[in-house]
Amino acid sequence: MPVLVMKFGGTSVANLDRIKRAAKRVGVEVAKGYDVIVIVSAMAGRTNELVGWVDEISPLYDAREYDAVVGSGENVTAGLMALTLQEMDVPARSWQGWQVPLQTNSAHSAARILDIPPDNIRAKFAEGMRVAVIAGFQGVSPEGRITTLGRGGSDTTAVAFAAAFQAERCDIYTDVDGVYTTDPRICSKARKLDRISFEEMLELASLGAKVLQTRSVELAMRYGVKLRVLSSLNEQSDSAGTLVCDEEEIMETRVVSGIAYSREEAKMTLVSVADRPGIAAAIFGPLSEAGVNVDMIIQNISEEGRTDMTFSCPTDQVKRAEKALAEAKARGEINYHDLIADTDVAKVSAVGIGMRSQSGVAARMFKTLSDEGINIKVIATSEIKISVLIDRKYMELAVQALHDAFELEKLA
Amino acid sequence: MPVLVMKFGGTSVANLDRIKRAAKRVGVEVAKGYDVIVIVSAMAGRTNELVGWVDEISPLYDAREYDAVVGSGENVTAGLMALTLQEMDVPARSWQGWQVPLQTNSAHSAARILDIPPDNIRAKFAEGMRVAVIAGFQGVSPEGRITTLGRGGSDTTAVAFAAAFQAERCDIYTDVDGVYTTDPRICSKARKLDRISFEEMLELASLGAKVLQTRSVELAMRYGVKLRVLSSLNEQSDSAGTLVCDEEEIMETRVVSGIAYSREEAKMTLVSVADRPGIAAAIFGPLSEAGVNVDMIIQNISEEGRTDMTFSCPTDQVKRAEKALAEAKARGEINYHDLIADTDVAKVSAVGIGMRSQSGVAARMFKTLSDEGINIKVIATSEIKISVLIDRKYMELAVQALHDAFELEKLA
Repeated sequence: MPVLVMKFGGTSVANLDRIKRAAKRVGVEVAKGYDVIVIVSAMAGRTNELVGWVDEISPLYDAREYDAVVGSGENVTAGLMALTLQEMDVPARSWQGWQVPLQTNSAHSAARILDIPPDNIRAKFAEGMRVAVIAGFQGVSPEGRITTLGRGGSDTTAVAFAAAFQAERCDIYTDVDGVYTTDPRICSKARKLDRISFEEMLELASLGAKVLQTRSVELAMRYGVKLRVLSSLNEQSDSAGTLVCDEEEIMETRVVSGIAYSREEAKMTLVSVADRPGIAAAIFGPLSEAGVNVDMIIQNISEEGRTDMTFSCPTDQVKRAEKALAEAKARGEINYHDLIADTDVAKVSAVGIGMRSQSGVAARMFKTLSDEGINIKVIATSEIKISVLIDRKYMELAVQALHDAFELEKLA
Repeated sequence: MPVLVMKFGGTSVANLDRIKRAAKRVGVEVAKGYDVIVIVSAMAGRTNELVGWVDEISPLYDAREYDAVVGSGENVTAGLMALTLQEMDVPARSWQGWQVPLQTNSAHSAARILDIPPDNIRAKFAEGMRVAVIAGFQGVSPEGRITTLGRGGSDTTAVAFAAAFQAERCDIYTDVDGVYTTDPRICSKARKLDRISFEEMLELASLGAKVLQTRSVELAMRYGVKLRVLSSLNEQSDSAGTLVCDEEEIMETRVVSGIAYSREEAKMTLVSVADRPGIAAAIFGPLSEAGVNVDMIIQNISEEGRTDMTFSCPTDQVKRAEKALAEAKARGEINYHDLIADTDVAKVSAVGIGMRSQSGVAARMFKTLSDEGINIKVIATSEIKISVLIDRKYMELAVQALHDAFELEKLA
């Protein structure tokens, strides 16, 4: 029988009623003839509670114990979902990560999936079981200890199962009914997209549109898993959500598919750096070693052998960046007059595969912002993305203006 | 290094402060030179919450899924305890049941321990780890599924580990500071016992004194594990609690060591049963098959070929008993006029190894109750126990009168 993967996030299994509602959706697919693999998250709020306890005990915790604690919420939901399905006369059983086993490397709390041997579950399907309920987010290391895949890791669990079982589709049930052209809370004209390419979704996810974990999109792209995002909460709606797929499967051409934003970006400026060959390596080497994720970089024109160097990084890494640079200065590796951290900025990005073939997108973006009197502090571009750093107070205005400028309300 | 087992119940790990307090006690034993195996229960209330969810979804639940859900609370505490110990610079790590592995049979939700291979944990002790924190109550079946050991099962986990590691002692930390001559809430003269024999503890546990799971006491007796019950809550007290040990280790002679009671006993009377050889088997066979735990049995003198048969069973099994007997009657296997269930009774018991050698205990018990005007409905005795069923309203009075009569306030 064809296999379908269905993943339910924390809000979709927040209580027994929601679990029942999710189980009914699973029952519908079983009735259509699918063998279903259900991936569940912990009940909403539960993982945060567990993380809070660990943080309270030990700010510099042992990641192996963190994983053992934080991964436990999914076990509860998996068992409750299996029981609910059984109560509906759907043959089901639960699997915890180590039971599958979902094998990962030993990078605790950010583990990578190595393998999902499908034989155990396939044998149960052959015996008549119709639903395998899997505790998401967790796996087991080569040392036999519990690992977790990072926040949002259940998305990645779902896609990995879909790849391992050559599933027809991987449906991600969440609290929104699909991927939007931008955040509807900020822009009332935002439209749900019927389809979006893997590449675009990847940029949107990494830019802070929190619908899917970035790695799950990478994995889906690599293995050609058809990924669908839809709502489990909207009872009456039979909305098909948004399909994340190869760009060949998207008929209409569009230049920009979405406007993303992030408030969690800080602008760091090294003032009056002594400019010399290798200075960039001297600055960004120590930052990388300290685990600072540098996003955008700008180097100003050099005057009299000195220059200003500006970069952006997540706001919660500012302290770490300051420490790493101060240490490099103390070691005599770099020389600068001042380091200014500006956390009152936001990143706004336009994303679209059409940019590859169509020119003038950047120009239109810059003109739109300029017309609104918004000053651009830093610019970064990729093949299908243009990002700008602006004052945080203009973020909503910029999103709305760009949404209008690229006529995204006409997409669907 | 000598090994010590310390078990902390749900109230002893109810929140992070309590876990810290428990960890400090562990640290004291580590400082004395012990390698410590810590067994933890789920945080107080957590298991009840999980059981409640399962019951709400499915009154006739799949016990394998029940175990997967209900056993998860201990994993959280084990990880948090390991982190707390690490924070105190005590080398510690957690083990879940399947990681040890604590091997059980497949009797889900009432599984029996088959084996605890000690090599894995011993190797870690040899490497310098000082505390192994074990999630109590849970194990793994030969099929690789999670099992639980029944309510109070963490006591049994603790004793089994003490036996497997030849521990010097097994300390059970709970919310009372030891085993008392009777329940102090009912009798203000109740005294904590310094020592009690395995046999007496076994009778007290099975009679409803809920300090230890009955099976843990059986296991301790079989493997000669020194068991100590003490409070983790009483901060200032350095009370040594109560030692459960071989009777040879108890110096003072005493006839009765404790008065136990149970409100959860019902008296069932089959009125006018046709008396014939094999009638007892015809009655109690079907009850046993229906899973009714019959405790006391009385058969009245037979008159004109008919008799009354009285027995006791837990109150929550009354419905099941009625159904089993009605079915046996319908099948023509037994014949009776009426079945009367009296749930307004209580069982009161005197327990003491001294009864073996000293006569007159029963007589003193009956006279004491008679002097208080309490009517005895059913009597049952074992080598070291006398139990009576009485009207529930007299229960407290009976406990106090018997405590006085056997001068238990003089014990310690």
